[in-house]
Amino acid sequence: MNRTVHFASDNYAAVHPEVMAAMAAANEGHDVAYGADAATAAFDAAIASTFGDHALGFPVFNGTGANIVSLMALSPRWGGIVASEHAHINSDENGAPERVGGLKILPLPAPDGRLDPDQLGRYARDLGDIHRAQPVVLSVTQSTELGTLYSLEQMAELTYAAHELGMRVHMDGARIANAAAALGVDLRTATAGADVLSFGGTKNGAMLGEAVVILSPELRGSLAHDLPYLRKSTMQLGSKMRYVSAQLTALLSSIDVTGTPLWLRNARQANAMAARLREALAPLAEAGAIRFTQDTESNAVFVELPRAAAEAVRAAFRFYDWQPGAAPDTVEARWMCAWDTTPEDVDGFAAAVRGAIDGAAARTR
Amino acid sequence: MNRTVHFASDNYAAVHPEVMAAMAAANEGHDVAYGADAATAAFDAAIASTFGDHALGFPVFNGTGANIVSLMALSPRWGGIVASEHAHINSDENGAPERVGGLKILPLPAPDGRLDPDQLGRYARDLGDIHRAQPVVLSVTQSTELGTLYSLEQMAELTYAAHELGMRVHMDGARIANAAAALGVDLRTATAGADVLSFGGTKNGAMLGEAVVILSPELRGSLAHDLPYLRKSTMQLGSKMRYVSAQLTALLSSIDVTGTPLWLRNARQANAMAARLREALAPLAEAGAIRFTQDTESNAVFVELPRAAAEAVRAAFRFYDWQPGAAPDTVEARWMCAWDTTPEDVDGFAAAVRGAIDGAAARTR
Amino acid sequence: MNRTVHFASDNYAAVHPEVMAAMAAANEGHDVAYGADAATAAFDAAIASTFGDHALGFPVFNGTGANIVSLMALSPRWGGIVASEHAHINSDENGAPERVGGLKILPLPAPDGRLDPDQLGRYARDLGDIHRAQPVVLSVTQSTELGTLYSLEQMAELTYAAHELGMRVHMDGARIANAAAALGVDLRTATAGADVLSFGGTKNGAMLGEAVVILSPELRGSLAHDLPYLRKSTMQLGSKMRYVSAQLTALLSSIDVTGTPLWLRNARQANAMAARLREALAPLAEAGAIRFTQDTESNAVFVELPRAAAEAVRAAFRFYDWQPGAAPDTVEARWMCAWDTTPEDVDGFAAAVRGAIDGAAARTR
Amino acid sequence: MNRTVHFASDNYAAVHPEVMAAMAAANEGHDVAYGADAATAAFDAAIASTFGDHALGFPVFNGTGANIVSLMALSPRWGGIVASEHAHINSDENGAPERVGGLKILPLPAPDGRLDPDQLGRYARDLGDIHRAQPVVLSVTQSTELGTLYSLEQMAELTYAAHELGMRVHMDGARIANAAAALGVDLRTATAGADVLSFGGTKNGAMLGEAVVILSPELRGSLAHDLPYLRKSTMQLGSKMRYVSAQLTALLSSIDVTGTPLWLRNARQANAMAARLREALAPLAEAGAIRFTQDTESNAVFVELPRAAAEAVRAAFRFYDWQPGAAPDTVEARWMCAWDTTPEDVDGFAAAVRGAIDGAAARTR
Repeated sequence: MNRTVHFASDNYAAVHPEVMAAMAAANEGHDVAYGADAATAAFDAAIASTFGDHALGFPVFNGTGANIVSLMALSPRWGGIVASEHAHINSDENGAPERVGGLKILPLPAPDGRLDPDQLGRYARDLGDIHRAQPVVLSVTQSTELGTLYSLEQMAELTYAAHELGMRVHMDGARIANAAAALGVDLRTATAGADVLSFGGTKNGAMLGEAVVILSPELRGSLAHDLPYLRKSTMQLGSKMRYVSAQLTALLSSIDVTGTPLWLRNARQANAMAARLREALAPLAEAGAIRFTQDTESNAVFVELPRAAAEAVRAAFRFYDWQPGAAPDTVEARWMCAWDTTPEDVDGFAAAVRGAIDGAAARTR
Repeated sequence: MNRTVHFASDNYAAVHPEVMAAMAAANEGHDVAYGADAATAAFDAAIASTFGDHALGFPVFNGTGANIVSLMALSPRWGGIVASEHAHINSDENGAPERVGGLKILPLPAPDGRLDPDQLGRYARDLGDIHRAQPVVLSVTQSTELGTLYSLEQMAELTYAAHELGMRVHMDGARIANAAAALGVDLRTATAGADVLSFGGTKNGAMLGEAVVILSPELRGSLAHDLPYLRKSTMQLGSKMRYVSAQLTALLSSIDVTGTPLWLRNARQANAMAARLREALAPLAEAGAIRFTQDTESNAVFVELPRAAAEAVRAAFRFYDWQPGAAPDTVEARWMCAWDTTPEDVDGFAAAVRGAIDGAAARTR
Repeated sequence: MNRTVHFASDNYAAVHPEVMAAMAAANEGHDVAYGADAATAAFDAAIASTFGDHALGFPVFNGTGANIVSLMALSPRWGGIVASEHAHINSDENGAPERVGGLKILPLPAPDGRLDPDQLGRYARDLGDIHRAQPVVLSVTQSTELGTLYSLEQMAELTYAAHELGMRVHMDGARIANAAAALGVDLRTATAGADVLSFGGTKNGAMLGEAVVILSPELRGSLAHDLPYLRKSTMQLGSKMRYVSAQLTALLSSIDVTGTPLWLRNARQANAMAARLREALAPLAEAGAIRFTQDTESNAVFVELPRAAAEAVRAAFRFYDWQPGAAPDTVEARWMCAWDTTPEDVDGFAAAVRGAIDGAAARTR
Repeated sequence: MNRTVHFASDNYAAVHPEVMAAMAAANEGHDVAYGADAATAAFDAAIASTFGDHALGFPVFNGTGANIVSLMALSPRWGGIVASEHAHINSDENGAPERVGGLKILPLPAPDGRLDPDQLGRYARDLGDIHRAQPVVLSVTQSTELGTLYSLEQMAELTYAAHELGMRVHMDGARIANAAAALGVDLRTATAGADVLSFGGTKNGAMLGEAVVILSPELRGSLAHDLPYLRKSTMQLGSKMRYVSAQLTALLSSIDVTGTPLWLRNARQANAMAARLREALAPLAEAGAIRFTQDTESNAVFVELPRAAAEAVRAAFRFYDWQPGAAPDTVEARWMCAWDTTPEDVDGFAAAVRGAIDGAAARTR
């Protein structure tokens, strides 16, 4: 098989061989179900080593599960979750926070994917008003759904502002690896004061698995008690957990000859490929044939191009429109790179884009 | 590593090598996320081939997920689910049907794990009474949580009775493979008129994966529309679905030189080991030192033994008490066999039980 | 209009004139919505005077609302509620605890409506098991749904046992007035150690209104914070609350010339009428024509009678079968008396029952 | 007692004497609980007479209850509800749609409270995308939360557009009476093609009671089946329903000597008082001392005034800030008039405002 590498999603990527190997290594004989196994003990150690001794990780099945278990753990039944309107929890989880968690998302505009501390007041003034969902949690996504990044300073300011207002901070880290790689910091630093992290594995080369990571020393006691019940009752507890734990441990701990952990290698590659794609398309943008709609700070390129050109590229490559049908003649495409995207893949895709643009231009001449 | 084979749960077992191989085979290059991939297409074909052309399968993460997505699909918001009080949905899912699905379980006593058609009247008389949860679904577990089996006749009578009363029938088939193997029928026959099946993979040698299978031709249209939304909004939709699909397909379709599919080989082995264990312990039962509390019709042995003896066995082997703490001096143990339990494992375990019983007897002399 | 007094439910009764007068008195000009009004301040004082200075009351719309707000306040999201299988929360609220509260009712058999401390162990052993709904609350109904009463000693033992096991205690007091009247104690004594009370007004002569009453001094702080949010978000917060508060205050505080409060007068009358009915029918029971199936300790008479006789009585009077359709030839009827049931009503009804029994006997001769 | 008439909310108002009389008239002897009573039969007839023979009404306790029962009836479990960001269901129900109904509100900006058909596309393009809450219902509020009105043409266009997109239309008619009065049409005409109406009684002179009204002939069959179960399981079913029904019937059917029904008299009075207040304050606005922030088309005046002046007015009158704390030096006040607001009340309040403005001006001089 010689499958096309698409630019649709980092979820289209395969599983990294070191992750496969880790699952195979875990596949020996019986071990205790639901987390009291050797592989999960190793995962616990990897979490402590990565995020600090106080940190605790709880493997779950998917990113939505990690987000909602996190948010339920941080919220009373009358909780509201302040987030960007583009946040995955608001726009891409079919209301799971509302339907499973009984939470209300309190959206804020975020044209570039980032929230600003000044925006928090919009909901903070509802604190104590029983008629309003109580804005007890701020959820930020790093890197953002729009491929941008909060700088460490921005994140620290935002976290500080939220904490000052009495809010807790959740980080949707489905792409925290890409963010840390881009910022040039370790994962712990990248969490920048968040209380709970949804740690993403699937988009970073795993097969299936994320983790809720308790970061706040202050909340550790109560959350460590509550999380196992929440994970179970929301159907996010896997029985043969060792295989999920082994994947996440591989990402955190499997190092190459240079001592670089797998999460970082995978994230760097994805980010580098997005940068390469952006650079390859820059002349088109300078010529006005396409328009970059967001900065490329992690592994995504957001670009507006003529609909006809987009359709032509789709003859060979899959990718998603960011807002399907929003405009009649143009498309805002999201082009994602993954850990297994190669320079050749990028170059081939960029050539296809150039060809489609030229073809579209020729047709309109 | 040379791990002990425990008798605690079929969830303690490893992943069958053919399942591992199937995941490795699926691990090539990019493929579409969320189910529009080649491996899931193969899974769809395997479902149709196994359960009939009208059947449709939807991979999910775990058994609780399969059950609750199934039950939500079959119920209005005011639905009640008639089930054995021992049903996994009633006793082992920490209220997920209630909390995620807003469903009410309507329990019935089932001392041997099986329901009887005559019991349905207990709730059927509430149909049309707005003050009561409406008993719109009967959920049966095959093989049961107590290691027993419905005969095909019993199941047909139960299904018929439920349908006559206007109820739909869900089968929790976490161990449908064990049931079919024990009954000597194919999987489709084993479903015996159920409308929707939770098809179990994890306990049958998979790593992680189950499926909701629509069986009823009459309901296929509406359920096929609804299920994708339910699966997504309950956090049971995996992005890299190909790896779950590949596992389930391996169970259904991977055959050995005799043409026997993997699900059947795995189930036969587990069942045979339980029978072997039962036989090995029969003399103890005949001598009154232990007491079998349920028939062994699939892969479980339920047995009452002195608490001291149980504790002695636990020095080397893990297993669960069925009702922990229910009696002061005795324990009702559930001993499960898995696809990877060997005759040597059984014999070693039986010897340990015999030794513990002898030791306990010696101490009380 | 000269309406028949039925024996179907204390909900069929009218509103007591003193309650009507209290609403009329509250109906003057503007007052603040949502509870910061003068009538609700008077209600707060009446609650403190009745249940102790530490007690806090929160008016809600109906009994189901009072129960579920209470139970949600006492439970985490993974909570289970231990209760009689006949409890209103289990059998007559169409799953509202499950659907609105995400709670799981953990039912226990209670042939006479009462639970026994020894039964708590059935669920208490699940404490700490993440796979099981956590039995954090015991809910008892006083007087019970079967017209029986816990003695103060029984209630104290039950409450003590639950607290020892770490459970909190909720009392469904839809008929707490009838219980207190029958026990000859004040309302506070009748709560017998419960932490939170659903205080019933509607069945005691009000038009529409119940209250969640926080009784536990220990829980007062946290519950007083939480309850307003829970009441609002479960749609149990009334805007023109003064009219509900005024009703409840009238029940608690409106006294007659003998100093007897309205709740007690109403409850005594209902209880006395049930006793009168029981006495009137005793000869039939002694003759074997009917059978009392429960003791009559509050305002209900439970009786088994021939179906034909029951149907004959229904020509003139409404009442409910306890388990409709449970038996082919007999009916277990629940005959409820209300605050406005008179001796003449009872005598007329008893005569109708006697006539129907005679008629049925004649027909079978 | 001589209570101040406030301008905070139409919920501060008393109950109209004709409504009180209707409850008193219903208060005779026993009647069947839960809706099979004579007063509810009269209510049913009033609904049919008002909204058409196909219409069906279901009394509930409060506006949030009416909204959520309506929306649940119109939505599958994966439903999204398109609404103004200012909609009561989005901003003033503490997430009850999310928490009780599992629904997701899909907000749209509406600076003057009204939605435009062109805005629907924002969510309509998500139809069929399983990752997104499905925008199956449009909920409009008439008159709007900002005191404005949809014209009949605007409403018809909006309803048509929604239906064309496959959405159903819910009207939050907490103030439908004010809207109909202002538009000069009957209530049925005011519904303008909505499928289900939350009919508001409480703000229109009732004590406590609203109704879900099924308007769509096409949906009548299925909704008439479903609604009783939904109303019960969401805790919105009152036992002594006759008293709620009687109130609503009084609003719909109680006429004065001119044949004008009570709802219309009450609404006209409230609207007229708001107009009078607006007129009284117009000179202040023309002088730039205050600024009207919305048109006054029903019974509300929205106005921006100096914070100091607002505080001075508050010495004698209660009212709410629309967005508390949104600006440091000014307040956007919402001044509501009710059925029992008199010209004298308005004139006194306007004088207080003028005095406060003058005082504030004097202080800053």
